[in-house]
Amino acid sequence: MMRALSCLPLICGALAALTLPAKAQEAAPGMTPAELVAAAPPADWRAIDPADLLVMTLAPDAAGQPRQVIIQLIPAPFSAGWTGNIRTLARAHWWDGTSVYRVVDNWVAQWGDGEDDKADPKPLPAGLRVVPESEYLTPIMAGPEDGRDYVLTPKHEDVVINRWIDSYAITAFAAGWPLALDDTGGRTGWPVHCYASVGVARDLSPDTGTGAELYAVIGHAPRALDRNIAVVGRVIEGIEHLSTLPRGKGEAGVYDDVALHVPILSVRLGDELPADQQPRFEYLASDSASFAAYLHLRANRADAFYRAPAKGVDICNAPVPLRRIAAGR
Amino acid sequence: MMRALSCLPLICGALAALTLPAKAQEAAPGMTPAELVAAAPPADWRAIDPADLLVMTLAPDAAGQPRQVIIQLIPAPFSAGWTGNIRTLARAHWWDGTSVYRVVDNWVAQWGDGEDDKADPKPLPAGLRVVPESEYLTPIMAGPEDGRDYVLTPKHEDVVINRWIDSYAITAFAAGWPLALDDTGGRTGWPVHCYASVGVARDLSPDTGTGAELYAVIGHAPRALDRNIAVVGRVIEGIEHLSTLPRGKGEAGVYDDVALHVPILSVRLGDELPADQQPRFEYLASDSASFAAYLHLRANRADAFYRAPAKGVDICNAPVPLRRIAAGR
Repeated sequence: MMRALSCLPLICGALAALTLPAKAQEAAPGMTPAELVAAAPPADWRAIDPADLLVMTLAPDAAGQPRQVIIQLIPAPFSAGWTGNIRTLARAHWWDGTSVYRVVDNWVAQWGDGEDDKADPKPLPAGLRVVPESEYLTPIMAGPEDGRDYVLTPKHEDVVINRWIDSYAITAFAAGWPLALDDTGGRTGWPVHCYASVGVARDLSPDTGTGAELYAVIGHAPRALDRNIAVVGRVIEGIEHLSTLPRGKGEAGVYDDVALHVPILSVRLGDELPADQQPRFEYLASDSASFAAYLHLRANRADAFYRAPAKGVDICNAPVPLRRIAAGR
Repeated sequence: MMRALSCLPLICGALAALTLPAKAQEAAPGMTPAELVAAAPPADWRAIDPADLLVMTLAPDAAGQPRQVIIQLIPAPFSAGWTGNIRTLARAHWWDGTSVYRVVDNWVAQWGDGEDDKADPKPLPAGLRVVPESEYLTPIMAGPEDGRDYVLTPKHEDVVINRWIDSYAITAFAAGWPLALDDTGGRTGWPVHCYASVGVARDLSPDTGTGAELYAVIGHAPRALDRNIAVVGRVIEGIEHLSTLPRGKGEAGVYDDVALHVPILSVRLGDELPADQQPRFEYLASDSASFAAYLHLRANRADAFYRAPAKGVDICNAPVPLRRIAAGR
């Protein structure tokens, strides 16, 4: 168990001086996290490859307004079996004509072909892998004596005893994503469920799901799903088009009337679109000084509104900053 | 700092055998939390006094469907200054004719008279208290040698080192509500922000807000607000009428067009309604064996879907079970 580590005398000795590890660049007095992020230097931002984006176009809303949801796929090696399937499904335009068919308050909005007991399931494209359950965990060190593959922020050494241990796991950010780490040295990690996370719906185990049926989290982070279901990405624009949908009143929140289904007009990988229509985004590098300062400020809000800084922040209340940039940039 | 407590040798010694403290009644194999709650004996349920409920009736939706939101006020002594004001406002029917005017995705839906820079603010009723900031904290022990005023579940003694310490505080349930506790013995507590929590909007400090402008949380628990703003209750029915509202596009998520405001037809205390219309609810007593078993099961999901039990649960992912009962019951 992770906290058993805290009984090592060396580490216990450090407890009395518990502080969040992030020092890095200091925020100006009174700065909000948004202001700090806006002031981050260009070098601390990383481009997101349009090939890692899914552009989902829903039917217009009742007022005729367009609805577009953009999802960033998590980079390999995390959940790579499922994201591989998702790329195959997207390239086959498999989701075109499917729908959002299940919406549960404080839980998820789910889309695809629908319930698995359908009489006429939509045939899946060739080439989908059956992904084993073991892939819920990802090795993040090359070997016992080798270096860690990722820069963790905060550093793993600093987080064994501090508030980055939450009710579920040791947590940290790597490669721009929120992760949890095993409690035997952090040799494996797994992406965690936060608001707007996208995951692979599945039947009862041991089926891990193909990736054809997906969901986005629209409530409090359902962390009990971590390691039980694959996180494959996050909605980075347009989550409100899912979070405001009417809640389903059928079993498990499925819409009890097909007329309520929200049609999906198309899902495209970003690089399938004409160059001038490819969405361009950047994320704040989680191994940058700006990100460390951002985390520190998220945990120690110092703007005028906050009277009692929390002195901590959970992994899902410090979303990795993202920004849309002009297509030609 | 709270984890500094873990350096007491006695407590450190217990770390190696870290388990969640709840033993209590065991769930049957494969049981879900909902099934366990449904099987709880009647004696473990407590009635909610209709006088502690606010019934908020919004204008019908676009399809003409009624929209009712029921809020349970937190019992004294927690946030008692504000809940007193809220009772005064409700008895004055002050909210009738006001509106939901601000909705921010993954944050809050807010209602009342509107932004505080209005040219024609609605006059407040007489008798509202100015509540001091100190009341964000509530003493929960009568004195150094006296007993604790509340039964905490899990027991405070058991939670000093375990997963009920989250990124923000030591947490526990008392009197049917999720609380955080100070880290110097848990002598004070404060209600925490979870999904569907209701709080008192305010200006910049040191104004704590009157209670006239309220919000409900519609996203991941904004725990940084704890101790910075008063939690006064929780939505126990109809949160979807707030969480599905269109997100505001004006400053800070305020609707930029008054036509988007969602009219509030009325807000009534439950006991103002005719007896046969008074909403009747019960909650699962947080000091009951059933609740302890529920918490344990929430942290150790054992039904067929879960392959890897989390072995922990955060305070906001274990909502206190509530149920509506027939009016005549």
